[in-house]
Amino acid sequence: MKRGFGSDNHSGVCPEVLEAIMRVNKDHAVAYGDDEYCAATEAKFREQFGEQARVFFAFNGTGCNTLCIDAMVHSHEAVVCAETAHINVDECGAPQRIVGCRLLTVDTPDGKLTPELVKTRLHGFGFEHHSQPKLISITQPTELGTLYTLDEIKALVALAREYNMYVHIDGARLGNAAVALGCTFKEMTTDLGVDAISFGGTKNGLMMGEAVVLLNPGICPDFKYRRKQAMQLCSKMRFIAAQFDAYFENDLWRRNAEHSNAMAQKLYQAVKDIPNVRVVYPVQANGVFVQLPRKVWKELQNHYFFYDWDEDADVVRWMCAYDTTEEDIAGFVETLRTELSRSYLGVTS
Amino acid sequence: MKRGFGSDNHSGVCPEVLEAIMRVNKDHAVAYGDDEYCAATEAKFREQFGEQARVFFAFNGTGCNTLCIDAMVHSHEAVVCAETAHINVDECGAPQRIVGCRLLTVDTPDGKLTPELVKTRLHGFGFEHHSQPKLISITQPTELGTLYTLDEIKALVALAREYNMYVHIDGARLGNAAVALGCTFKEMTTDLGVDAISFGGTKNGLMMGEAVVLLNPGICPDFKYRRKQAMQLCSKMRFIAAQFDAYFENDLWRRNAEHSNAMAQKLYQAVKDIPNVRVVYPVQANGVFVQLPRKVWKELQNHYFFYDWDEDADVVRWMCAYDTTEEDIAGFVETLRTELSRSYLGVTS
Amino acid sequence: MKRGFGSDNHSGVCPEVLEAIMRVNKDHAVAYGDDEYCAATEAKFREQFGEQARVFFAFNGTGCNTLCIDAMVHSHEAVVCAETAHINVDECGAPQRIVGCRLLTVDTPDGKLTPELVKTRLHGFGFEHHSQPKLISITQPTELGTLYTLDEIKALVALAREYNMYVHIDGARLGNAAVALGCTFKEMTTDLGVDAISFGGTKNGLMMGEAVVLLNPGICPDFKYRRKQAMQLCSKMRFIAAQFDAYFENDLWRRNAEHSNAMAQKLYQAVKDIPNVRVVYPVQANGVFVQLPRKVWKELQNHYFFYDWDEDADVVRWMCAYDTTEEDIAGFVETLRTELSRSYLGVTS
Amino acid sequence: MKRGFGSDNHSGVCPEVLEAIMRVNKDHAVAYGDDEYCAATEAKFREQFGEQARVFFAFNGTGCNTLCIDAMVHSHEAVVCAETAHINVDECGAPQRIVGCRLLTVDTPDGKLTPELVKTRLHGFGFEHHSQPKLISITQPTELGTLYTLDEIKALVALAREYNMYVHIDGARLGNAAVALGCTFKEMTTDLGVDAISFGGTKNGLMMGEAVVLLNPGICPDFKYRRKQAMQLCSKMRFIAAQFDAYFENDLWRRNAEHSNAMAQKLYQAVKDIPNVRVVYPVQANGVFVQLPRKVWKELQNHYFFYDWDEDADVVRWMCAYDTTEEDIAGFVETLRTELSRSYLGVTS
Repeated sequence: MKRGFGSDNHSGVCPEVLEAIMRVNKDHAVAYGDDEYCAATEAKFREQFGEQARVFFAFNGTGCNTLCIDAMVHSHEAVVCAETAHINVDECGAPQRIVGCRLLTVDTPDGKLTPELVKTRLHGFGFEHHSQPKLISITQPTELGTLYTLDEIKALVALAREYNMYVHIDGARLGNAAVALGCTFKEMTTDLGVDAISFGGTKNGLMMGEAVVLLNPGICPDFKYRRKQAMQLCSKMRFIAAQFDAYFENDLWRRNAEHSNAMAQKLYQAVKDIPNVRVVYPVQANGVFVQLPRKVWKELQNHYFFYDWDEDADVVRWMCAYDTTEEDIAGFVETLRTELSRSYLGVTS
Repeated sequence: MKRGFGSDNHSGVCPEVLEAIMRVNKDHAVAYGDDEYCAATEAKFREQFGEQARVFFAFNGTGCNTLCIDAMVHSHEAVVCAETAHINVDECGAPQRIVGCRLLTVDTPDGKLTPELVKTRLHGFGFEHHSQPKLISITQPTELGTLYTLDEIKALVALAREYNMYVHIDGARLGNAAVALGCTFKEMTTDLGVDAISFGGTKNGLMMGEAVVLLNPGICPDFKYRRKQAMQLCSKMRFIAAQFDAYFENDLWRRNAEHSNAMAQKLYQAVKDIPNVRVVYPVQANGVFVQLPRKVWKELQNHYFFYDWDEDADVVRWMCAYDTTEEDIAGFVETLRTELSRSYLGVTS
Repeated sequence: MKRGFGSDNHSGVCPEVLEAIMRVNKDHAVAYGDDEYCAATEAKFREQFGEQARVFFAFNGTGCNTLCIDAMVHSHEAVVCAETAHINVDECGAPQRIVGCRLLTVDTPDGKLTPELVKTRLHGFGFEHHSQPKLISITQPTELGTLYTLDEIKALVALAREYNMYVHIDGARLGNAAVALGCTFKEMTTDLGVDAISFGGTKNGLMMGEAVVLLNPGICPDFKYRRKQAMQLCSKMRFIAAQFDAYFENDLWRRNAEHSNAMAQKLYQAVKDIPNVRVVYPVQANGVFVQLPRKVWKELQNHYFFYDWDEDADVVRWMCAYDTTEEDIAGFVETLRTELSRSYLGVTS
Repeated sequence: MKRGFGSDNHSGVCPEVLEAIMRVNKDHAVAYGDDEYCAATEAKFREQFGEQARVFFAFNGTGCNTLCIDAMVHSHEAVVCAETAHINVDECGAPQRIVGCRLLTVDTPDGKLTPELVKTRLHGFGFEHHSQPKLISITQPTELGTLYTLDEIKALVALAREYNMYVHIDGARLGNAAVALGCTFKEMTTDLGVDAISFGGTKNGLMMGEAVVLLNPGICPDFKYRRKQAMQLCSKMRFIAAQFDAYFENDLWRRNAEHSNAMAQKLYQAVKDIPNVRVVYPVQANGVFVQLPRKVWKELQNHYFFYDWDEDADVVRWMCAYDTTEEDIAGFVETLRTELSRSYLGVTS
């Protein structure tokens, strides 16, 4: 397949991660996580997130997000999230089916919730006809490539506490956020009072492996059963643990995220002043969202893979990955310029 | 960890499988299975199961079993299975939660359903107070290490057809069954009219990777959405496909299964005539179920890992894996003999 | 309790309905609907909706709405409805929990969907990450007291057909709509191609008793099991059937609905020109939505029961029922005027 | 329809109950239970069950049973019940679909659980692959017409406490049990430590109306939302409350239950010594279970309605109701004798 800017999960696996997998591939290990490798990696998570962190490996982001909601929300309760949130638009209704709850969505200008926006959904407490708001779920960085500052997260946590609600972060790309904000994972989550995290590694160089990190000690003492029943319990779990072991070792996660963020900046700088190309959201992590003439992006897709984001608005998404190269970007921008010229010369295939 | 006979998923990953993973780890591949590697492996599945086979990779056995039930059973319908079936006792209620249906369980002498046993649960058709029987689910080989002959499966399919029901095989160890019966996968499933299979690889040398194989073209045209919503859709799916590619290449699956079956036979032969050791089920695949004095197996567990099976009956389970060695068995049997002697000399720690 | 304008289900039971209940209260009748009374009432439904109508009595509107969705939508599919729809805001998430699907809500100016509004949610067909739109659900009359014309319903049905979707009407007050539009039930539903209806009687004079009416012969042949499993199967069902028998007999439904609609008009006429009182939606059925100063409606609630509708916007809802009297309205309007005067004289308690 | 012995819910409504319904049918009452009638009836429940009782009216027994399970059991937990329990065989899988949990069923000789029988299912605590046992559910009187003594219930509660489990009584016919045991409702439930009850009235003279009674103050503070979401919230709830008001007034429940129990005894006495008629369970409440030749009961069903209970064993069920008369029984027994004679003379239609 041609290289492209489709998604950071179109990339492969970091060599360090494969080596870690091979390293633990010896002898027997008790299945389902009750082994020394998992214990060691869980300890590394606690170094990152603080001693209170409870770590549960899972297979994918849909699983983590749904299990986090399940850990904090009953079916008669509700999650407040952005209309653009992955849990709303891209899980094929997994939260509804597995947890049975409502999502109360809010339109946002940039993918980010604010206390003011959340408050518009905080009604009907005590009224049995209405699902009771119980969780604020944010994505960091958002689906639109934007970032919450630490203060913005703090303000949402404060609002949640006021209403006896919880805060969840969908952190499929949390490494990109930490790098962009120049903070640790703990400073961005535990220290702010966040209750639970979907911690992703697959989009930043792992093969497959995500983790639920529960920071609030009071939530869901029965989580291990919930994970099993929700079909997210891996048998040869050492092979997920090993991936995260490599991820934290020597700051692999950081190097990968820095790289993909930097590539997105490079791409942004290269296109932002091209006529008829409009970058529609601030480029704060590893995604660039661009509005450009339809026939141009259709042509461009013949050369590079990337997704339409909003067909009606002619907006497309270009994601950079840990393995995106400067050559990839140079070639892409050149092709873009070529297609734009062809288009404006009236030459279309 | 010490080696043991805990489960075939306590073993690691076959070298050939790791090599296949590394082989596909280059460039980009479209996520979620829409790539050339997945297409190629799906073709290999069709070679094994016939052209009508629809293949859906998944993460684990719980996912495959639950999705197979979901594909054929509405919540107001029911699955007939053995009381000992994995879907009944070892999924923490995943079918109930995800599908919402009833399991109608049958006590069996050896883990195997028969038409006569199934018929005891075929009542209440058309009566809206009763869940409607819709699926017969069998495990091949069973959780007790026993095997259905092809004729026995055929008879169950015939019964299912008579009642407008489907047949599912939980094939977490289907390779072990094929080897033991000396037949192909197709002869054991498609040719007999089986509707759907949970096809396992993890217990026979893969790292993680299972597959739902739908043989009946009429069932669940919407399966891809069901898999996604049930949180079993892998993003970097080429890395599951690659594992199965290696699995079928050069009959790796067969060599592995032949080996674990042979080791089980060797273990069985070595213990069957030892006084105070009673093998309680026919050893037909890679598991040996043994009744022996409690203090003996408790001591033995200090040296080798294995599971209690039925504490009340003093029955334990010894599973052989693709990587079990003759030395493992020799050492194990020797320790067993030692512990038995100690026990009968009244020497206990 | 003081009389009021809280809801049409704050009223009691029509005498004719109680008489019908007493009339069938003799001897034994087979439970769960398999009796002559139910058969007779089902025949009356077919007179109203056409021969193809399949009728299933149920306990309440939440049950009917959820079962209608369940009959047409899988968990991986979605319902398009108005943000204000009862199924969205007032079922405490029953559709999500019972069916497990998503609701794709649309902001509307007046509670009514249009083809244009619906189309904004018709995306992602064939994309497994997105819940697949399958049902358009409208309320007639809407939660805001407005009405769809027959042509408007027809246009929505046409759109649904184009996308292989179904159309459901939440008809908790369908009688009020039929009266207002001067049409029969059949002309408003069956003749337009509507697939299923939640047909309400409780808000128009019944004690308790609603019905699912399936018009599309192709949907949900297993409905009777779905109703039972969803806990909506009544044992002494003749007592629901009898209520509907009285409802259709001598056009009781029509007389009741005409009366409540007329009372709403009377109320509307009496308040529409009062300063500081603003009727915010067209009064087309039996509800009047009014914006007025907060302290006035707070005072007014000390005398008459009615619900806040939108606290932020100071909008309240006044519902008229089959038993609302002209005296009720005269007294209410007088109290309203008094409170307005007190308010503007600065006299508040 | 001909009178018969089909079920106690084939009978109609007690005159006292209809009168109570008519009595509350005046003016307006706030919907959904927030009215004076409901408050008054709830107080009467507290007189019967003790001050700690929380009462929630519901529509039917399936609703009550499922909601009680929902109040105490998470989806990854399990209910221990008799194989013959209504929640197992006669709810079309409602607990599985709504709660998502497993039922761990036990074969019993007479429909009654014992601590010894329950213990056979108390395994796997702490093992995430197994649903965790959390609730013991018994039916009083059982589906086989037998009774638990107070001591037997006490022993089950003691076992539950030992394992940190709850106890639920399916009391669809609890009045019949109280009468038979000569005790109050409180002595049979609250005083023994029972946690929750499905309290039935419909089978003992009500029109439709059941109630969940939560006795353990610690369980499910969110019950009102669970009831709404589970579609069991009645709008004109005063009409359920009124029925229970009449039920407790002047011990109507007791008179009705005494009558149906007495009729069952009369029927039992009349048939127990007839050759070829075998009463298969002790007659302790209002049901008589009888084994008799198939052609006889098939003929008998032409004259009187009753249900096959176990077709394989030629066992049928005869239920007496609050309105069963001595004439009904005399006629029935005479017809039975006639059919037996015809049968043994070889005269069959």
